[in-house]
Amino acid sequence: MNRTPYATANTVRTDAAPADALGTSAARTRSAELEKLIRDDPGRFRVLTGDRPTGRLHLGHYFGTLHNRVRLQDLGVEMMVLIADYQVLTDRDVADQLPRHVEDLALDHLAAGIDPARATVFTHSAVPALNQLLLPFLSLVSVAELNRNPTVKDEIAHSRQSAVSGLMFTYPVHQAADILFCKANLVPVGQDQLPHLEITRTVARRFNDRYGKEAAVFPEPEALLSSAPLLLGTDGTKMSKSRGNAIALAADADETARLIKGAKTDSERHITYDPDARPEVSSLVLLAALCEDRDPRQVADEIGPAGAGALKKRVTEAVNEHLAPIRARRAAYARDLGYVRQVLREGEARANAIADATLDEVRRAMNGHR
Amino acid sequence: MNRTPYATANTVRTDAAPADALGTSAARTRSAELEKLIRDDPGRFRVLTGDRPTGRLHLGHYFGTLHNRVRLQDLGVEMMVLIADYQVLTDRDVADQLPRHVEDLALDHLAAGIDPARATVFTHSAVPALNQLLLPFLSLVSVAELNRNPTVKDEIAHSRQSAVSGLMFTYPVHQAADILFCKANLVPVGQDQLPHLEITRTVARRFNDRYGKEAAVFPEPEALLSSAPLLLGTDGTKMSKSRGNAIALAADADETARLIKGAKTDSERHITYDPDARPEVSSLVLLAALCEDRDPRQVADEIGPAGAGALKKRVTEAVNEHLAPIRARRAAYARDLGYVRQVLREGEARANAIADATLDEVRRAMNGHR
Repeated sequence: MNRTPYATANTVRTDAAPADALGTSAARTRSAELEKLIRDDPGRFRVLTGDRPTGRLHLGHYFGTLHNRVRLQDLGVEMMVLIADYQVLTDRDVADQLPRHVEDLALDHLAAGIDPARATVFTHSAVPALNQLLLPFLSLVSVAELNRNPTVKDEIAHSRQSAVSGLMFTYPVHQAADILFCKANLVPVGQDQLPHLEITRTVARRFNDRYGKEAAVFPEPEALLSSAPLLLGTDGTKMSKSRGNAIALAADADETARLIKGAKTDSERHITYDPDARPEVSSLVLLAALCEDRDPRQVADEIGPAGAGALKKRVTEAVNEHLAPIRARRAAYARDLGYVRQVLREGEARANAIADATLDEVRRAMNGHR
Repeated sequence: MNRTPYATANTVRTDAAPADALGTSAARTRSAELEKLIRDDPGRFRVLTGDRPTGRLHLGHYFGTLHNRVRLQDLGVEMMVLIADYQVLTDRDVADQLPRHVEDLALDHLAAGIDPARATVFTHSAVPALNQLLLPFLSLVSVAELNRNPTVKDEIAHSRQSAVSGLMFTYPVHQAADILFCKANLVPVGQDQLPHLEITRTVARRFNDRYGKEAAVFPEPEALLSSAPLLLGTDGTKMSKSRGNAIALAADADETARLIKGAKTDSERHITYDPDARPEVSSLVLLAALCEDRDPRQVADEIGPAGAGALKKRVTEAVNEHLAPIRARRAAYARDLGYVRQVLREGEARANAIADATLDEVRRAMNGHR
């Protein structure tokens, strides 16, 4: 279950065929076209992406989303990175540590290479005009449509309805406000997030139809599907901080070595890359391959008969080497939290300027020809 | 059915016994105490009240709510008068005329005696920090609770669920933001609106319990029940602009005379005040009595055998005399819409200053002991 529309970061997605394979297939084709358009003219794209601040990011997040954000930034795409602090309020354990989680998220992004001179990093709670857009947008969406949202349905199925907050129920519309306030035209998503983006596109279309007679106010943002690799936790289950099976970006080299040493493998000595039959071993191979920017099959071949011990040694070295500069940056920034807070304040000021301008435009459009 | 949480103005309430007579009875007792406290020390009260901008106000609104607002203001209570422009968006006929409706509502209030030097008149759409409060407040309320709201239940029963917008579904929480952003501690309501205020009180309590460990952030506002008189339209049904049976505050003396002349009465010549048996005649008697500040039974006795013609003449004179100064003020303000817009801008600036301060306090409370 994916409770988190904001964070592809908080889910490690599989490449399994989805129910709506056709929609996903079209999205994949379009994403390939978009990748080409980005390379040709990155300046025409503004990306909105973000995470719920639930703690330090781990390698699943890093290879799942963070890496891709830095890649897009470095290609010249304008990145808006949202820290969705209002979307964790109902998770009390998380909400009680909110300021620290926000800082951790900012630190992880700066460490990974998000450059505040080019990208805008900001929190929900700091941008009133963004949040105000929720109101007119809610008028464009029916309760029946909100009930059909797969994540909300999931949530209602997995808990009592009384446990679903009004905030959870309306988040797809809040997400529309996140994306549309800055007129982002591109949103990196996993395939399970396509329905969320569809609601944003619907809101943009309905707003334009109703109020944008003279000129469309909002773009209909497109999905940029990423095929995130399937990295398992060290116990062979989904990687998750709360399961203690995740390697944090911020972990040091010794902790990394210890975690990988304890990772689950299997009884077959010869190392191969076969995610279906040997998920734990293959996940370790994949992790080394991602860090070395190599093909996992090649990596497996190179280790082959040397067995799990050699695999773990290789993974540890690859991870620690790949993350060394990132961890060094993170440690430096962590010693200068004043700077991190300044980055957030500057991002928030930029986000507010954009949101205020959009809200002005929205008000003018809604008030017709006065 | 009352679709309008904001406007007692848009409903003419009856004095019929409610289902929850006990709750209402307690509210009545408390309201009498509150009236005494207001007279003793008006400065300790801030009132939030408001209307959905759906057109010019009529006599039902005037004697139902407007009159009471001016009374409270003149007693020295601080009045916050909200024009709920975001709550009419799903009513397309209304929304298409929004700027004019907002002006009309402001004009009616100024004409009736709301004094912008003492009262704050403002629109929803102008106060982002107020609207932002919807987000944390939504996290404190469950979907099940929203479904239990009588107005929403009514709406779902009377239309298809697909016709209920996300905005309608969440308005009790938006209303909590309206009331709590300025820490209003008193809300004039009709008895059918007691459940709405209960949600606001719940939100305030839950917010304080969760985030206000050191000091409560929000007051739990109290209901000031007004026993609004039952004024029928000139056709004997509920007074409503859309039925063409209402006398607008802004109507001129001739139009008023014509409308009253055409009012429905009954076949009994002798005029009496008996709302149950003779609703149309009694409503006319009541209207004269309200304008003359007299007891309706006395008014009826004075007319008695002179019949419906004499009654209508008396009502016409009473209404036109009572409204003459109000209508003169309204006409003067209508010739100076620049001033009216300035009143709104100044009210909005004041509301924004209050909302920004409250949002800052909310953020500090939510971020704990940083």
